[in-house]
Amino acid sequence: MKIKVGIIGATGYAGAELVRILAAHPNAELAALITQSYGGKAFCEVYPHLYKHVLMDCRELDIPSLVQEVDVVFAALPHGHAVPVAREIMKYGKKFIDLGADFRFNSKDTYEQWYKVEHADPDLLAQSVYGLPELYREKIKQASLVGNPGCYPTSVILGLAPLLVHGLIDTKSVIADSKSGVSGAGRGLSLGSHFCEVNENFRAYNVAAHRHTPEIEQELSKLAGEEMIISFTTHLLPINRGILSTVYAGLKQDINLDQVRSIYEEFYRGEFFVRLLPPGLLPQTKAVAGSNHCDVVPVVDRRTGRVVVISAIDNLIKGAAGQAVQNMNIMFGLPETTGLDKPGLYP
Amino acid sequence: MKIKVGIIGATGYAGAELVRILAAHPNAELAALITQSYGGKAFCEVYPHLYKHVLMDCRELDIPSLVQEVDVVFAALPHGHAVPVAREIMKYGKKFIDLGADFRFNSKDTYEQWYKVEHADPDLLAQSVYGLPELYREKIKQASLVGNPGCYPTSVILGLAPLLVHGLIDTKSVIADSKSGVSGAGRGLSLGSHFCEVNENFRAYNVAAHRHTPEIEQELSKLAGEEMIISFTTHLLPINRGILSTVYAGLKQDINLDQVRSIYEEFYRGEFFVRLLPPGLLPQTKAVAGSNHCDVVPVVDRRTGRVVVISAIDNLIKGAAGQAVQNMNIMFGLPETTGLDKPGLYP
Amino acid sequence: MKIKVGIIGATGYAGAELVRILAAHPNAELAALITQSYGGKAFCEVYPHLYKHVLMDCRELDIPSLVQEVDVVFAALPHGHAVPVAREIMKYGKKFIDLGADFRFNSKDTYEQWYKVEHADPDLLAQSVYGLPELYREKIKQASLVGNPGCYPTSVILGLAPLLVHGLIDTKSVIADSKSGVSGAGRGLSLGSHFCEVNENFRAYNVAAHRHTPEIEQELSKLAGEEMIISFTTHLLPINRGILSTVYAGLKQDINLDQVRSIYEEFYRGEFFVRLLPPGLLPQTKAVAGSNHCDVVPVVDRRTGRVVVISAIDNLIKGAAGQAVQNMNIMFGLPETTGLDKPGLYP
Amino acid sequence: MKIKVGIIGATGYAGAELVRILAAHPNAELAALITQSYGGKAFCEVYPHLYKHVLMDCRELDIPSLVQEVDVVFAALPHGHAVPVAREIMKYGKKFIDLGADFRFNSKDTYEQWYKVEHADPDLLAQSVYGLPELYREKIKQASLVGNPGCYPTSVILGLAPLLVHGLIDTKSVIADSKSGVSGAGRGLSLGSHFCEVNENFRAYNVAAHRHTPEIEQELSKLAGEEMIISFTTHLLPINRGILSTVYAGLKQDINLDQVRSIYEEFYRGEFFVRLLPPGLLPQTKAVAGSNHCDVVPVVDRRTGRVVVISAIDNLIKGAAGQAVQNMNIMFGLPETTGLDKPGLYP
Repeated sequence: MKIKVGIIGATGYAGAELVRILAAHPNAELAALITQSYGGKAFCEVYPHLYKHVLMDCRELDIPSLVQEVDVVFAALPHGHAVPVAREIMKYGKKFIDLGADFRFNSKDTYEQWYKVEHADPDLLAQSVYGLPELYREKIKQASLVGNPGCYPTSVILGLAPLLVHGLIDTKSVIADSKSGVSGAGRGLSLGSHFCEVNENFRAYNVAAHRHTPEIEQELSKLAGEEMIISFTTHLLPINRGILSTVYAGLKQDINLDQVRSIYEEFYRGEFFVRLLPPGLLPQTKAVAGSNHCDVVPVVDRRTGRVVVISAIDNLIKGAAGQAVQNMNIMFGLPETTGLDKPGLYP
Repeated sequence: MKIKVGIIGATGYAGAELVRILAAHPNAELAALITQSYGGKAFCEVYPHLYKHVLMDCRELDIPSLVQEVDVVFAALPHGHAVPVAREIMKYGKKFIDLGADFRFNSKDTYEQWYKVEHADPDLLAQSVYGLPELYREKIKQASLVGNPGCYPTSVILGLAPLLVHGLIDTKSVIADSKSGVSGAGRGLSLGSHFCEVNENFRAYNVAAHRHTPEIEQELSKLAGEEMIISFTTHLLPINRGILSTVYAGLKQDINLDQVRSIYEEFYRGEFFVRLLPPGLLPQTKAVAGSNHCDVVPVVDRRTGRVVVISAIDNLIKGAAGQAVQNMNIMFGLPETTGLDKPGLYP
Repeated sequence: MKIKVGIIGATGYAGAELVRILAAHPNAELAALITQSYGGKAFCEVYPHLYKHVLMDCRELDIPSLVQEVDVVFAALPHGHAVPVAREIMKYGKKFIDLGADFRFNSKDTYEQWYKVEHADPDLLAQSVYGLPELYREKIKQASLVGNPGCYPTSVILGLAPLLVHGLIDTKSVIADSKSGVSGAGRGLSLGSHFCEVNENFRAYNVAAHRHTPEIEQELSKLAGEEMIISFTTHLLPINRGILSTVYAGLKQDINLDQVRSIYEEFYRGEFFVRLLPPGLLPQTKAVAGSNHCDVVPVVDRRTGRVVVISAIDNLIKGAAGQAVQNMNIMFGLPETTGLDKPGLYP
Repeated sequence: MKIKVGIIGATGYAGAELVRILAAHPNAELAALITQSYGGKAFCEVYPHLYKHVLMDCRELDIPSLVQEVDVVFAALPHGHAVPVAREIMKYGKKFIDLGADFRFNSKDTYEQWYKVEHADPDLLAQSVYGLPELYREKIKQASLVGNPGCYPTSVILGLAPLLVHGLIDTKSVIADSKSGVSGAGRGLSLGSHFCEVNENFRAYNVAAHRHTPEIEQELSKLAGEEMIISFTTHLLPINRGILSTVYAGLKQDINLDQVRSIYEEFYRGEFFVRLLPPGLLPQTKAVAGSNHCDVVPVVDRRTGRVVVISAIDNLIKGAAGQAVQNMNIMFGLPETTGLDKPGLYP
C-alpha cells in the first residue's frame, strides 16, 4: 500500500524537490500537484528534468476534492497562508506537513512579532510538532501536524545540540554565521536573485534581523534548559544548493577535541542522516548536495577557549523537502530513510 | 545474485561516478576500487559525499587477485593503458568495459593517427563493441569487451542518428559545435582546470584537432553508409557537469519540423534514456545533470535550409559512467535501466 | 572643454556601464542620468560600486530641459522607444547614439519584420549610421545619429570581415554559433535570468529566430557585395560578461593559416581595439572582460576545407557602452581610444 | 619623471595585478618583470588580457642588474623567500615593498611560530613598516621597507579600527568570520583550487589555525592598547575576487547605530578608499571588485548587545597589489590615489 500525497506549492523549488523525491519513493504515490501559477500545465514542462518521470499535470487548489485523494498534504506556501489550508485539511483527518513557518513556534507571540502577521489559529499551532526528527522523533510519530524546520535552523540546531545537552557552552556566547545558496530564496523573481547580481558576488543580508533567529533560539533554549539569545547572520552564496553554518561558542570548561568528538559520536549514534566526519575532514556544501545528510564537525580552539562547529546541509533536502519526507516516513511508521538513502552528486 | 564489480581508476571523476551508481545498484556489488594515487585510503575520505555509503578502501592494481573477485571490470585510464590490462583480465574470462579510447575504434590506424600511440593489441580491438546501446544493443548483449563511447561523441551521434539513417542531410555539411563542463577533463591538476581560469570565462580549445572527431566520424559514417568528415569544435563551460552540442546540417529535401520530429519520435520510441522534448522546450544541461538521459531537439530552419539539432547529456553519466553501467546491464541480461532510472537534480 | 552627456536608460546594465566609462572620461561630463524606475534616487545607491565616483541623482525624462544641458544623448531603451526620443532631441541639434535596434537597419522592412513593430520615422532611419567604427569610421565622423551595433553582431562581423572583403569564403556556408553572458539580457527580471536557472546550466535560445540575425546578414552582405543568409544560434553562458562566437565558413580556395593570418593582420592594422592574438593563443571571454577589445583568431581546417573564426568581446563594452563611447569620440573629433584605453581584469 | 618599478613574482595573480595597475600608472614605469617559471616568455602570452598593453618579456631574477634599473621593487614571493632578496636590494638604496608575510610582524617570534621558518634577518624586520596606509601613513612616508598587509587582515582591521580606538568593544569578544575568493590562493595548482572542487561548493579551511590570525591580533592589539586574542575563521567562496568579513564584538556600553556610524564617519573622513556605505546598503564583494576600496558597514544589534561589522575588499587590490601601489605612492610623495582612482566593474 502506498501513501497518497498531495503537494501544495509544487512548482516552487522546495515543492519540486518534494515531487522528485516522492516520485521515486517506494511507499508513496503522488496524487495531486497543486500550484497557483501553472494550473493545467504538465508538471514536466515546468521542470523538464522530470520529463518521463512525472506525468501529472499541475492543478489549482480545491480542498474538498483534494482530501478525497490523499493521506497527507505537504505545503510550501508563504507564511500566513498555510494556517487556513491546514485547518481545512485536518478536519478531514488528513495529516499535514508544513514547510513554511506557520507551525514551527511554541509561542504565537514570537511568530507574530517576527513575521508581522497574526496567527489565525493558535489552537492548531499548539497541536503541531517541530519536525526535527533527530530531536523529536517520538512526538513526530504521534503527530498529525508537523511544522518542518527552517533550513538555517536545521543546520545550526543539529550543529549545537550535543554541546547544549551536555551543558558545555556558555549560552550567552553563541554566534551563528550562516551562508546559503540561492535556491533558499525560492523561484520567485527579485533583483536579489538575478543571476548577474549574485554570480561572482557575496553579501550578508538581514543582519541582526533574520526571521530564523527566534526559531533557532526556541530550539536551542529547549536543549539548554534556559532562555538563549544568539547572534545570527545570513549570507548569500553564489551557488544553487547548500547551507554552511559556522557556529562559535565559549566553552565553560577545559575540554579537548577528542572528548568533544566523543560526545558528538554518542549523540548522533544511529542517526543515518547526521554525519560526524572523520578527523581531518571538514563539512562542505558539495558533499551533502543532493542528499538528506547534515555533516557536522566541531573544532576546539584552546587559544580562545571557544568551540567552532561547522555544519552543512542541502537547504532544499535536509533543509526542506528531504526532512519533510523524513517526517512523513516517521508519521506513517516507515523506516526513516525510505526514499532518502542515496548520497548526493559530486562534483 | 549480484554482479561483482571492479573499478580501475576509481578515484577520478568518472570512476567515482561509477562507484556512486554501482553502490546503489540493486544487482551489483562493489568488489574492488583500484587507484594509483590513494592505495590504502578509505574511499570516502577521497570523496566524502559517499561517507556512510561506501565503506571500502582504495587499493592498488593486482590483476591475479582482482580476477578472483570480480565478474566485470570497468577501467577509466589514460589512453594506451587499458589495452594490457584488458588483455590480462579477459584471459580469465571476465568482462571488460573500458571508459577510455582504447577500444572505440574499428580502425587501429585511425586510433594511432589521432592518439599518437601504437595500439598494443589489434586483435583485441577487433573483438570490442562500441558501447552505444541505442545503436548497438544486440552486439553489446554478446560482447565481453566494450569500448564505452566518448562524452562528446555520445551527444553528437545520438543527436544526428535519426537524420542520417533516413538520409535527410547532406553528409558533407555537418558542423558540431560542442560545449562541455570541466569534469570532462578529469580531476588531474592543470592550469586549464584552475578555478580562477575557468570561472567567469569561456573559450574554445583544440579547434579542428580534438580526438573525439574521428570517433564521431566513424559512427556517423556507419549510420550514413558513406564516409563522413565533419567540423567539430569543443569549448569549456564554467560548470561542473554537462555537455551541450549544437549540430548543423544542410537538409537534402524540403521537410518540415513536424516530419522531422516524427522521425525522431519513431527512432527513439522505447528508448528511456533519450528524450525528445515536447515542442517549445530546448535541451539544457541542468535538465539532464545527475541522470543518464540524453535530451534531443531538432529545429528546422527553412530560411537557411538547415536543421539545427541540440542535444544535452551529463558528461559523467550518459557520457561516461552511466552509459558504462547501461552496457553492463545489457551484457548481464538485466533490464537496461537498472540502477539508472532516477532523474537528476534541479536546480 | 568637455562634452556634456545625457544617458537615457542609465540604470540598466548597459546604461550603468556608460556611466562608469564616462565618469572617468577625460573629455566628457555626465550631465543627466535618466531612468524610468529610480527617479530621484542617488545613482550610487542603485549601483554602489560607483559610490564616491558618481554623485548625481537619477531623474526622469524631460526632453526640453535635457536638451539645454547636453551635447549628446545616449539611449539604452527597448526597441521602438528610441525613435520618438531621438527625433525630439535631434530637432535641437544634439547628437544621438542609440544602443538599441531602432537605427541599425538600412531597410525599415527588415526591422519591422523581425522586431514586429512599425518604424515610426523611416526618414530619420535613413540618416543614421551603423556605428561599427572599424568599418564605418568616416561616416561616423559626419553622423549626428548613430545606431550602435548589437553585441552578437559586433563579434560576428569583426570576426568575418577580412575574409569577406577578400572574397575567400563561400557566402552560403556561414554558420555563427554564439554564446553570451547573462548581462546581455539586461537587469530586468525574468525566470530566464534567475540565478538558479542559469547557474550550472547552459542552453541555446531563440534557435533560428534571434533578432540579431538580420543585422549580421545586413553587414556581412555589404562586406561581401552580395546577399547573404547565415545560420545563427545564441546560447546563454553562466557568466556575467562576455560573448564568444565560433564562426564556420567554407573556404573557396586552398589557403593556409599564415596567409589567412596575414590578411587579418593587415585588415586590422592600426585598430587598437581589435586584437589578432599571437599564434598558439585563442580568444577567451575573460581576456576581454572589462575592456573595449575584440579578440579574434582564425583557424584553417584543411581536413574540412573550412575556416573557423573565434572572436570574443565584453558584451557590455565593445558590445554596447564601450563601442558607443568609441563612436562619441569619433563624432566629436577626439582620439578614438579616449577613456577606453585600459585593459580588463584577470582573473 | 617616472618611478622605475621591478616586480618579483610578476606572473602570480597578485604580481599580474601589479603589472596591470602599474602599466596604467601615470607616474610609474615597468622596468622588470621577474618570474621563476616563464623566463623569456612575453608577459602578454602568460596574461593575454594585457596583450597590446604590456610589451615586456618575463625574465629571471638577477639582483645586480635589477638594481641598476629600478627605484622600487615589489615582491610577491612565498614566505621566507623575500628576506634575502630585500636585504640585497636595500643595500643598493632601493625601496622594497613585500606582498608576503616576511615583513609584517613586530615580533620575529610570532612570525616564526606561525610560519614555521626562522626569520633570516630580524634587524631588517625591525626597520619595516606595516603598510596599512589608513593607520600608518606617516611612517610609510619615511619607510624604505614596507610589509604589505595580508588580504584578510586588511578587511578585519579596517572594519574594527574605529571601535577599538574609541574603546567601545570588549576586546575578548571578537570573532571574525571571513570568506575569500579563490585568487587569494594564487595561480599555483592544487586540488583545492581545481574548478570542480570549488565551483558550487563552500567550505571553511584552516579553522582556528590560519596564519593571518597573529597578524590581525598584532594590529588590533596596537589599536586597543592591550593584548587581544580573537577567533578567526576563513572560508573559500566560489568566486575569483573578493573578501567579505563578518566581525562580531560585544559592546561595552549602550550605544546606538547613529553614534556608531558617526564614529566611523569621522574616523575615515578623508580616506578615499574606505567607504562607509549609506544607511540601507551593506557591503558586497562585487561592489569593490576591481577597485582599491574597502566598504564598511557597522550594524548594532541591541538584542544581543553586539556590533556586527561587515567589510568587503577585492583581495587582489586593496588586499594586495592596490594597497602596495598605494604604499608606493606614499613612499614617493605622490597623491595617494594616483593610478588607483577608478571604480570597479559591475556586474
